[in-house]
Amino acid sequence: MNSFGRIFRMHIFGESHGPLVGLCLDGCPPGIALKEEDFLADLDRRRAGARGTTPRVETDHPEIVSGCFEGHTTGAPLTLLFTNRNMRSGDYAALARTPRPGHADFVASKRFRGFNDPRGGGHFSGRLTLALVAAGVVAKKLLPGIRISARLLSAGGHSDIASAIDRAMKEGDSLGGLVECRADNVPAGWGEPFFDPAEAVISHLAFAVPAIKGIEFGSGFAAAAMKGSRHNDPIINREGKTASNNAGGISGGLTNGNELVFRVAVKPTSSISKEQQSLNLESGIMEPLSVKGRHDACIALRVPVVIEAITAMALADLKLMAARGEG
Amino acid sequence: MNSFGRIFRMHIFGESHGPLVGLCLDGCPPGIALKEEDFLADLDRRRAGARGTTPRVETDHPEIVSGCFEGHTTGAPLTLLFTNRNMRSGDYAALARTPRPGHADFVASKRFRGFNDPRGGGHFSGRLTLALVAAGVVAKKLLPGIRISARLLSAGGHSDIASAIDRAMKEGDSLGGLVECRADNVPAGWGEPFFDPAEAVISHLAFAVPAIKGIEFGSGFAAAAMKGSRHNDPIINREGKTASNNAGGISGGLTNGNELVFRVAVKPTSSISKEQQSLNLESGIMEPLSVKGRHDACIALRVPVVIEAITAMALADLKLMAARGEG
Amino acid sequence: MNSFGRIFRMHIFGESHGPLVGLCLDGCPPGIALKEEDFLADLDRRRAGARGTTPRVETDHPEIVSGCFEGHTTGAPLTLLFTNRNMRSGDYAALARTPRPGHADFVASKRFRGFNDPRGGGHFSGRLTLALVAAGVVAKKLLPGIRISARLLSAGGHSDIASAIDRAMKEGDSLGGLVECRADNVPAGWGEPFFDPAEAVISHLAFAVPAIKGIEFGSGFAAAAMKGSRHNDPIINREGKTASNNAGGISGGLTNGNELVFRVAVKPTSSISKEQQSLNLESGIMEPLSVKGRHDACIALRVPVVIEAITAMALADLKLMAARGEG
Amino acid sequence: MNSFGRIFRMHIFGESHGPLVGLCLDGCPPGIALKEEDFLADLDRRRAGARGTTPRVETDHPEIVSGCFEGHTTGAPLTLLFTNRNMRSGDYAALARTPRPGHADFVASKRFRGFNDPRGGGHFSGRLTLALVAAGVVAKKLLPGIRISARLLSAGGHSDIASAIDRAMKEGDSLGGLVECRADNVPAGWGEPFFDPAEAVISHLAFAVPAIKGIEFGSGFAAAAMKGSRHNDPIINREGKTASNNAGGISGGLTNGNELVFRVAVKPTSSISKEQQSLNLESGIMEPLSVKGRHDACIALRVPVVIEAITAMALADLKLMAARGEG
Repeated sequence: MNSFGRIFRMHIFGESHGPLVGLCLDGCPPGIALKEEDFLADLDRRRAGARGTTPRVETDHPEIVSGCFEGHTTGAPLTLLFTNRNMRSGDYAALARTPRPGHADFVASKRFRGFNDPRGGGHFSGRLTLALVAAGVVAKKLLPGIRISARLLSAGGHSDIASAIDRAMKEGDSLGGLVECRADNVPAGWGEPFFDPAEAVISHLAFAVPAIKGIEFGSGFAAAAMKGSRHNDPIINREGKTASNNAGGISGGLTNGNELVFRVAVKPTSSISKEQQSLNLESGIMEPLSVKGRHDACIALRVPVVIEAITAMALADLKLMAARGEG
Repeated sequence: MNSFGRIFRMHIFGESHGPLVGLCLDGCPPGIALKEEDFLADLDRRRAGARGTTPRVETDHPEIVSGCFEGHTTGAPLTLLFTNRNMRSGDYAALARTPRPGHADFVASKRFRGFNDPRGGGHFSGRLTLALVAAGVVAKKLLPGIRISARLLSAGGHSDIASAIDRAMKEGDSLGGLVECRADNVPAGWGEPFFDPAEAVISHLAFAVPAIKGIEFGSGFAAAAMKGSRHNDPIINREGKTASNNAGGISGGLTNGNELVFRVAVKPTSSISKEQQSLNLESGIMEPLSVKGRHDACIALRVPVVIEAITAMALADLKLMAARGEG
Repeated sequence: MNSFGRIFRMHIFGESHGPLVGLCLDGCPPGIALKEEDFLADLDRRRAGARGTTPRVETDHPEIVSGCFEGHTTGAPLTLLFTNRNMRSGDYAALARTPRPGHADFVASKRFRGFNDPRGGGHFSGRLTLALVAAGVVAKKLLPGIRISARLLSAGGHSDIASAIDRAMKEGDSLGGLVECRADNVPAGWGEPFFDPAEAVISHLAFAVPAIKGIEFGSGFAAAAMKGSRHNDPIINREGKTASNNAGGISGGLTNGNELVFRVAVKPTSSISKEQQSLNLESGIMEPLSVKGRHDACIALRVPVVIEAITAMALADLKLMAARGEG
Repeated sequence: MNSFGRIFRMHIFGESHGPLVGLCLDGCPPGIALKEEDFLADLDRRRAGARGTTPRVETDHPEIVSGCFEGHTTGAPLTLLFTNRNMRSGDYAALARTPRPGHADFVASKRFRGFNDPRGGGHFSGRLTLALVAAGVVAKKLLPGIRISARLLSAGGHSDIASAIDRAMKEGDSLGGLVECRADNVPAGWGEPFFDPAEAVISHLAFAVPAIKGIEFGSGFAAAAMKGSRHNDPIINREGKTASNNAGGISGGLTNGNELVFRVAVKPTSSISKEQQSLNLESGIMEPLSVKGRHDACIALRVPVVIEAITAMALADLKLMAARGEG
């Protein structure tokens, strides 16, 4: 379903090449100062333009169309619209005939019996992360004092990211990437047993971001090779500060007052100009395919701000849940 | 919250040392043949007894108390109860004074203002995975033809698992583990854009399992170091069969008709008899701590059947969601 | 589905003649003093025994099996079980052949393809209101200072209720009834635009109570025949106190600080010993039917405490919702 | 919250005098033929213009902005926007000072701490029923063969509706009304025990419609004065057809194959030009108030198409729920 959150809920809608992409936030408290300019910094970070991202420069201007009055949220659903200026049509018949490897086109068509919007991935497009970023801007306002910050650690396995991307671009290829997110000053006790531990809520949202294929908290996969005496984080003060942070700031599914740390694996963009093989569904014969157009050589470059946004959404909802019985 | 699922929903309740652990399944279709014996095989796989797990032998007998009549589900909520036979009390005051490193005790107490049940972890106990396993048994019945199978690949980083566990036990220490789950014959098209892609639903449930700290689908974290030309899986027949399976059977959040493959990282059990340091909250001084009692040296040994169960729950719910508009 | 509530959620399960009826309350704050005796007064009010209700005296003893430790709620799911002591079997084949007029048997069988539990109405039984009453006891504890009180205004149209019921019993017939519920000291502002106005949440729960066929708030149906100048309630002090209360304490879907007032219509019990006609589904011929056994001549006698309970559940959840953004 | 539905969900947003009112439908199956013209007939029925409704003629043109491609739904969220052309500002300071009797202004301000949009009722405005009507148009398409039809039975207690409204208009007053809705060809078995019986779902949505203060199914409140022998509907054929229909087509919370019949009570519009008394919150003195502007003398005239719409939404969702386990 196209909604997420228990109390602070977001709904997203729209398609890549339809008239717009939209976000509706329900459960947002009244009285939060908010104006359209507040969104621009994070939207800019997500936007194309950096080396290794699509060269086209879309201007993503958010329009607040409900839930805000005289510069403050009203408590009614807060809706933002992003008009699409890029509504090219393409040769979708060709794509349907010879599916692009790694793309959702083929399965989406099966699932929606051919009625899905094929233009630019339709509702499956990465363009919908615009709405996630916007939701994150509002969510961050519900988390005063908490600083959330994500960055790209490596691309294609290389920490010298710029040169790795250059090489991939020359080859008409793309690169995966590793993104780390940290949040400090998160109070202890956020998360819901049994089914909404903090890791579960964050990971649920992280996998809603296109191209994410893995997530790990704290030591993560390295913990599978550890002993308990090495992994256990000793508590060293009465606020629960620990000497190490193998848990990544989450114990028993609840934030534990230490820094929240997790990493996500971003797969390489599937659209590449380098020649690949795919099945022509009509002829039944494998044939060469080179995906034309402008593509991100490393979509992971755009991911950090999106991961910050979903982290903020998750924390804001967990905060409201944790506060629910305190009255 | 203690519920999960859009249509096929499970609710779990109970505490480790309370009278019982329970499972209530809502949205289960009528007419499914079901008897208490059906649960025993999977419950046995989860149960203690194997080398490296707690030596005590609990008998986990499920009692079906609603939703079943004359050997078939009725369509009403299906409830199972597991009586706890192990209701020892312990020195919880001591635990509250010097928190066990890696445990949820400290944060749970903060979150629930000291009212949480401290006995054996209370509602945070791994004993609640009993209910997950039982839910999985029912969910598997909704997935005829699909075979779900998980296994432990390594413990403490060693693929010679038995000897690694032996060594850890001698040291009074514990080991993490790596578990892989595979499901074949999953039809293409299960998963919900935008917020319920198959990875999101599976990972949400996986992180509800105590001790899970990471999950990756298909190539997972290795994809972060790949090029697109290497990661893309070429479609080679009209059913969507791909030559490779870097996607782990999920494209664009929808199952793609190939084998579903994912791995989870299980952290080492935090309760170890080997001496550790922790803060005495009263004196404010770090002091040595050795956790007494019988512990799992490698909780990951018990995890495969639990991961199968949550996979079955996720797939069953996604199946019902995907079928919803077909009438 | 068998759950209700946004934050404070109840799940109910069980069948009339199965082993038990159960209640699981999720989202209950920690630290609420609670013991089994707290439930007895309201359970007694619901119980059979009064003139006009089934003469059998069931003892409905609640057993708290999770979510409570040392006399206080823990914040984990609070579960109560009621063992059924009345598990007679009957001639359900006969009932299936000649459906009792007014009963759910026929449609339940259609819906659940014959797999529903037919014994005493199964999951459709009025016995499940036990769980509602128990939920109400807990919900009332979340509403300190608010007094909720319901009573039977008339039975079969007569305000001399006792003699009307006597006459119906002699005829082997049953009577409907009108129940009014009032709650005072409800603060202004509870209710959620757009889809969870206070009337909507209360009515949703009211219609979950078997035999309820109508609900009206304040002047209710009489308002349909009024002019605005007569219906409008003038505000007379700064707290929002109104001179009249045609709105029944709810304006624009939000509680307005005045007394909450609503009435529900309870249909007469469908099981009567007086002879009726029904179709024999095998022969296709109408035939006389007299429903044997002990029946409530006026089920409405038992309804007030149930209506109080659902009102408390609705208000408790709306209170937690209204408080959600105040941190 | 601003969402409703288990599988087929609607979200609504917008304010009376903001830029737009919007509807987002999630869970809509793919492949349903849909164009903007399909909405016009029902939107016209809701629109002002008839005698007794606001004379201004708004043009309510729906714009489909997502979820539809080449004339068919895609399975992605279906979003419609209605641009507001009537964005007058008014003297809201005066309204805040002397609240209009019967209006939500006062409690809305309390609930949202003064941040709610006061213009024309903001998010509480009856204008949001536009979105309900639009949702109904789509829902009706999911219910082929079912005819839903509502009409105004009386206004101010008079069945000669036109002349009653004339008199009220001359007096600057308003009238309540009684609306009846019927749906035929509804299959048996729709509705969910325990908390989503058909009456509960329909009533929940009905009370989301501004001005509704009562609902009754079949004989409704009259049933409270009946005997069982009179109220029971005898089944007369194998499809469950009954000789009478006191149940209004719903038995045990499930549709029973007979005509669905219910009535709602609509209170009179609270905005009237006739002089009323209200408290000046600043001076603390009661003072005369006459609400200026164009008002509906009988808002109930616009209600039938809205009630049809919420009935269609309820039935469509219940249909999808009932079908969920049939695969």
